Amino acid sequence: MSKMKAAIVEGFGEEFQVKDAEIPEPGPGQVLVKLIASGVCHTDLHAAEGDWPVKPKLPLIPGHEGVGIVEKLGEGVTEVALGDMIGNAWLASACGHCQYCRTGWETLCEAQSNGGYSVDGSFGQYMLVDSRYAAHIPEGSDPHEIAPVLCAGVTVFKGLKMTEVKPGQWVAISGIGGLGHIAVQYAVAMGMRVIAIDVADDKLALASKHGAEITVNAFAQDPAEIIQQKVGGTHGVLVTAVHPKAFGQAIGMTRRGGTIVFNGLPAGDFPAPIFDIVLKGLTIRGSIVGTRQDMIEALEFYAAGKIKPTFHTRPLEDINAVFDEMRHGKIDGRVVIDYAGRA
Amino acid sequence: MSKMKAAIVEGFGEEFQVKDAEIPEPGPGQVLVKLIASGVCHTDLHAAEGDWPVKPKLPLIPGHEGVGIVEKLGEGVTEVALGDMIGNAWLASACGHCQYCRTGWETLCEAQSNGGYSVDGSFGQYMLVDSRYAAHIPEGSDPHEIAPVLCAGVTVFKGLKMTEVKPGQWVAISGIGGLGHIAVQYAVAMGMRVIAIDVADDKLALASKHGAEITVNAFAQDPAEIIQQKVGGTHGVLVTAVHPKAFGQAIGMTRRGGTIVFNGLPAGDFPAPIFDIVLKGLTIRGSIVGTRQDMIEALEFYAAGKIKPTFHTRPLEDINAVFDEMRHGKIDGRVVIDYAGRA
Amino acid sequence: MSKMKAAIVEGFGEEFQVKDAEIPEPGPGQVLVKLIASGVCHTDLHAAEGDWPVKPKLPLIPGHEGVGIVEKLGEGVTEVALGDMIGNAWLASACGHCQYCRTGWETLCEAQSNGGYSVDGSFGQYMLVDSRYAAHIPEGSDPHEIAPVLCAGVTVFKGLKMTEVKPGQWVAISGIGGLGHIAVQYAVAMGMRVIAIDVADDKLALASKHGAEITVNAFAQDPAEIIQQKVGGTHGVLVTAVHPKAFGQAIGMTRRGGTIVFNGLPAGDFPAPIFDIVLKGLTIRGSIVGTRQDMIEALEFYAAGKIKPTFHTRPLEDINAVFDEMRHGKIDGRVVIDYAGRA
Amino acid sequence: MSKMKAAIVEGFGEEFQVKDAEIPEPGPGQVLVKLIASGVCHTDLHAAEGDWPVKPKLPLIPGHEGVGIVEKLGEGVTEVALGDMIGNAWLASACGHCQYCRTGWETLCEAQSNGGYSVDGSFGQYMLVDSRYAAHIPEGSDPHEIAPVLCAGVTVFKGLKMTEVKPGQWVAISGIGGLGHIAVQYAVAMGMRVIAIDVADDKLALASKHGAEITVNAFAQDPAEIIQQKVGGTHGVLVTAVHPKAFGQAIGMTRRGGTIVFNGLPAGDFPAPIFDIVLKGLTIRGSIVGTRQDMIEALEFYAAGKIKPTFHTRPLEDINAVFDEMRHGKIDGRVVIDYAGRA
Ligand SMILES: [Zn+2]
Ligand SMILES: [Zn+2]
Ligand SMILES: [Zn+2]
Ligand SMILES: [Zn+2]
Ligand SMILES: [Zn+2]
Ligand SMILES: [Zn+2]
Ligand SMILES: [Zn+2]
Ligand SMILES: [Zn+2]
Repeated sequence: MSKMKAAIVEGFGEEFQVKDAEIPEPGPGQVLVKLIASGVCHTDLHAAEGDWPVKPKLPLIPGHEGVGIVEKLGEGVTEVALGDMIGNAWLASACGHCQYCRTGWETLCEAQSNGGYSVDGSFGQYMLVDSRYAAHIPEGSDPHEIAPVLCAGVTVFKGLKMTEVKPGQWVAISGIGGLGHIAVQYAVAMGMRVIAIDVADDKLALASKHGAEITVNAFAQDPAEIIQQKVGGTHGVLVTAVHPKAFGQAIGMTRRGGTIVFNGLPAGDFPAPIFDIVLKGLTIRGSIVGTRQDMIEALEFYAAGKIKPTFHTRPLEDINAVFDEMRHGKIDGRVVIDYAGRA
Repeated sequence: MSKMKAAIVEGFGEEFQVKDAEIPEPGPGQVLVKLIASGVCHTDLHAAEGDWPVKPKLPLIPGHEGVGIVEKLGEGVTEVALGDMIGNAWLASACGHCQYCRTGWETLCEAQSNGGYSVDGSFGQYMLVDSRYAAHIPEGSDPHEIAPVLCAGVTVFKGLKMTEVKPGQWVAISGIGGLGHIAVQYAVAMGMRVIAIDVADDKLALASKHGAEITVNAFAQDPAEIIQQKVGGTHGVLVTAVHPKAFGQAIGMTRRGGTIVFNGLPAGDFPAPIFDIVLKGLTIRGSIVGTRQDMIEALEFYAAGKIKPTFHTRPLEDINAVFDEMRHGKIDGRVVIDYAGRA
Repeated sequence: MSKMKAAIVEGFGEEFQVKDAEIPEPGPGQVLVKLIASGVCHTDLHAAEGDWPVKPKLPLIPGHEGVGIVEKLGEGVTEVALGDMIGNAWLASACGHCQYCRTGWETLCEAQSNGGYSVDGSFGQYMLVDSRYAAHIPEGSDPHEIAPVLCAGVTVFKGLKMTEVKPGQWVAISGIGGLGHIAVQYAVAMGMRVIAIDVADDKLALASKHGAEITVNAFAQDPAEIIQQKVGGTHGVLVTAVHPKAFGQAIGMTRRGGTIVFNGLPAGDFPAPIFDIVLKGLTIRGSIVGTRQDMIEALEFYAAGKIKPTFHTRPLEDINAVFDEMRHGKIDGRVVIDYAGRA
Repeated sequence: MSKMKAAIVEGFGEEFQVKDAEIPEPGPGQVLVKLIASGVCHTDLHAAEGDWPVKPKLPLIPGHEGVGIVEKLGEGVTEVALGDMIGNAWLASACGHCQYCRTGWETLCEAQSNGGYSVDGSFGQYMLVDSRYAAHIPEGSDPHEIAPVLCAGVTVFKGLKMTEVKPGQWVAISGIGGLGHIAVQYAVAMGMRVIAIDVADDKLALASKHGAEITVNAFAQDPAEIIQQKVGGTHGVLVTAVHPKAFGQAIGMTRRGGTIVFNGLPAGDFPAPIFDIVLKGLTIRGSIVGTRQDMIEALEFYAAGKIKPTFHTRPLEDINAVFDEMRHGKIDGRVVIDYAGRA
């Protein structure tokens, strides 16, 4: 039992090596988790390709939507017990005492570590989790189905909070992919009225099924025009799409005084039209993943039956194929790696 | 008494004509004001040149920082009396019942009229003011000194509110001109700790005099670097400078989770770096002038002795020269047109 | 057509006189409405009995949940047209320019008039409505069913907002009568998780039908104990019950940092335990009806199919019997006076 | 060096025993502090007398406004170094992971320990401090003068925040004693306009010196009447007085929509007038001490020269006399125990 199978990045832009690795030992405060499932996130692709200014560790086991069972406790672990079902997260740990950690904003901690990026993650049969930042999976959860909540779910849930859209008000969700189709469900559960924007009719149909009241195919129509005409602009916009065109459209879709939240991390600049932003009193805001509190709440919405991610299971061996499909935008909902023989 | 002297724009980009005009008659809800003083705002220049997509009326008497005495009441005026000292404002009137007017956000009203833009303003010896949107000048005020509060003052005061910087936190004020030197004073009076940024040392000295604790000459130094090093970034930034470079600097000056408020209306786009905005959890926001409530509060700060605009009086006949100086950035503080023989 | 039937209070504590009265003429800004339906509110009872320190006009036609069709326009009406279906409200009018009116808090305007209290209301075949404060009934509404939204609905909707309970958090609703059974529906529609408290099992069953996840019969059990045990206390409590015992229980039901909102207007004091309030960081807050904006939102929730008041229609002639039943707590849901021959 | 002098409570209601005690050993995460000064708080009196439902440890060394130098580090201390000047606090430690600790509300943590109550405090020559919850004393501070900031200062600072009074708005501070005279200074530094209420003219004179614009002697005049007449009611009230009459007055002093914050912990109930609370839309709120973030900010205001507590030093041997004076309301400002030979 001292070896496990894992998908390892050895150089940026290279294929994953799926091979044997050492099962790690939990240090103080850590626990060893035997994985059942792990979602695959766009961020894993950026990690593997070394896209961002701050590079991940190498060699790297990516993955930050992992769910499994605690098999071993490090020293001083009090909040997690053997046999618990827990998850890892992008926010793998934080310092606990900086200005951000002190005020419920640990997602901004400058000393944070990140799952599957600065520390190894869930693309292997075992992973280490900091017990203080572990996600506790609610009883009765389907581990494969809940996996995407650990990043996609908490990210859009927090993003929706940051739009400051109130129950009964309109929110536009731009991009109905892995993040967006879950965002529609959270928005509906939060009492918001939802307009979904995408360029694919099947994704818009999924949004309608989850409760979007209006859908706009941005390939065929100008979403800004439609939305201004139908509801006078939305109170908020959540931009999960990475296409730069989506950012400009978001400005046009918003009602005066509204808020646009960017939930993705594309490289490059967005040409922000200052005149419009000032005249219309707009707010533009970035939001990344969520805190421990956001995570608990996001998981509770799942447990209450409000959130049902669309996912497809794949074995770890398919990891390179999965990333190819992701590169070509061919993935519906979320891919979840299966370690339990369910795939 | 049926004629008055006024500075009139007859065609965009043309010189002002200073000549005789009819003294207008107050309609229902309006009052006729004999002017004592009027500040000159950058917006007046944009109006006279027809710079913005929605054009002002023509011919136009600009001016929205006018202070004077009520000489005549229109029908149904209840909130203003003969002899009152009142001011006009950019927000000359609003509909009173739309979603914005209902919720204390009349500055976003789509049916608003604007002083010295869609209705005639304060660049003449008389002006009409909608009594429901009049600014009531507190007793004991110096009419020339308070004039700049009517637009510059309320604009930066509201802008500072929108930064959501709390007492004891740091705000950077970018640009210490007509708006910025008043912003420093409001920020100090609101309990904020102030960092002033400009490219002119005399303006920075003025900022220090008004209570700025740190000043940065952006010509000589990189404000982002200095500010990150000295205070770890500010909680908020108020951008009153119109130079596009100021927008990018603002991103760099801000602490994670901070808010940048744009207070000016330059044309053109600002290249917003999405990756940084998301990773640092930044908020970027536009803010324009202020509501009736903001105006009352802004004037109260003046009455409490906390705000002292720097200004120079000029006769109305100098208006073309004043605008030339404004075009060349030669104005210190604010120019105030004098109608009372004080200049 | 110059006479109408109306239920008139001629002296406090006396029976209603149901008799002929003059149909009023709309003054400037007012409209004449031919009533279809009017809800009956507890406040009407307080008005008729002169219970409160500030007395209503006499003789008085009570009623502030009236729905009907605009038959005549006063001078200067722009926001309402002949044939529109509109409602009156407790907030019959406000001054439009005081500190509260300026900031979206017209419910606190000290110059407000109140429907069926300081001005005549909806307990007659016709009523006058200030067009600026009229409630616009959404197309497709059932006028009898929507009537209770005009006071009961907007009151609990605003009260729930004032609890500051966020989607996914727990709210306790104390008292499942005319207000409470609608509060459960708004809370669910706003994404809150609901615990209902009452002393009658049939009311608790109604709460469950509308989505309450937990119900407590306060006659049989201690709600504070049950709620602390099941969910660790709620984030907010909405007290619609007028029994003084309900106030003390509310303190006990709340989680640290939680907010208790009083929505009723009982006479007398509530013994607030300061030590607990400070130690647990509690907030106690009063909330009365709602603004024009709250009304529009409350009606939109109805139009979206989220709110379905339980009501029984009665003819105007039954008014004295209805008030007797109200005095003895015998009313389920809401009584709605029918003027359209539906009862 | 293994013995120290300390003031020890051996039984509730008994006199302090000033005698030798063991110098404690710092456990993991703790540091040993050699005291220079310690403020004396009303809470210490409640502790010594066992007034509250949850009793402190016995024997007990009270005191939670202690300032001193770190002399010894326990295992795993990273945030505090030998020689640092630090303080203890009422919030001696918290769990770090509950719903309150996760969201910047550790003052509500149900697993907190309290300085000089559930753990020994600063009424001795040495004390232990949890390094994660230590107050870091800013460079250049006077240790005796800053001591009262550690509880009195942070308590009123947080209390003022909880009034939600904005810069330029009015706050009433009820009671100008140990807490209140510091509250006036924080309120002024936060940009609020201050009305001070007390029954002693010398305390009101102190309030004026610190910037209160209006003072009311509640023995001679009705503060509610004066305040309504002079400013139309305040936006907020901070109640530091423990006299029950102060609570009722606070309701009367407040403007509609205003907030009253209780900062003290008297036993007994306050008869809250529900009708007024609802009609006027008031908020009543309890607030206790402050979080680590509040502490840092409160200390920064001191370091910026905005806060100057009035205090008198006394030797530890006077402790019983000091408590007698406190029982009889004879203390001006704050008493600070001196361990450094300054008294
Ligand atoms: Zn941190
Ligand atoms: Zn992710
Ligand atoms: Zn409007
Ligand atoms: Zn201007
Ligand atoms: Zn009612
Ligand atoms: Zn009003
Ligand atoms: Zn204390
Ligand atoms: Zn805790």
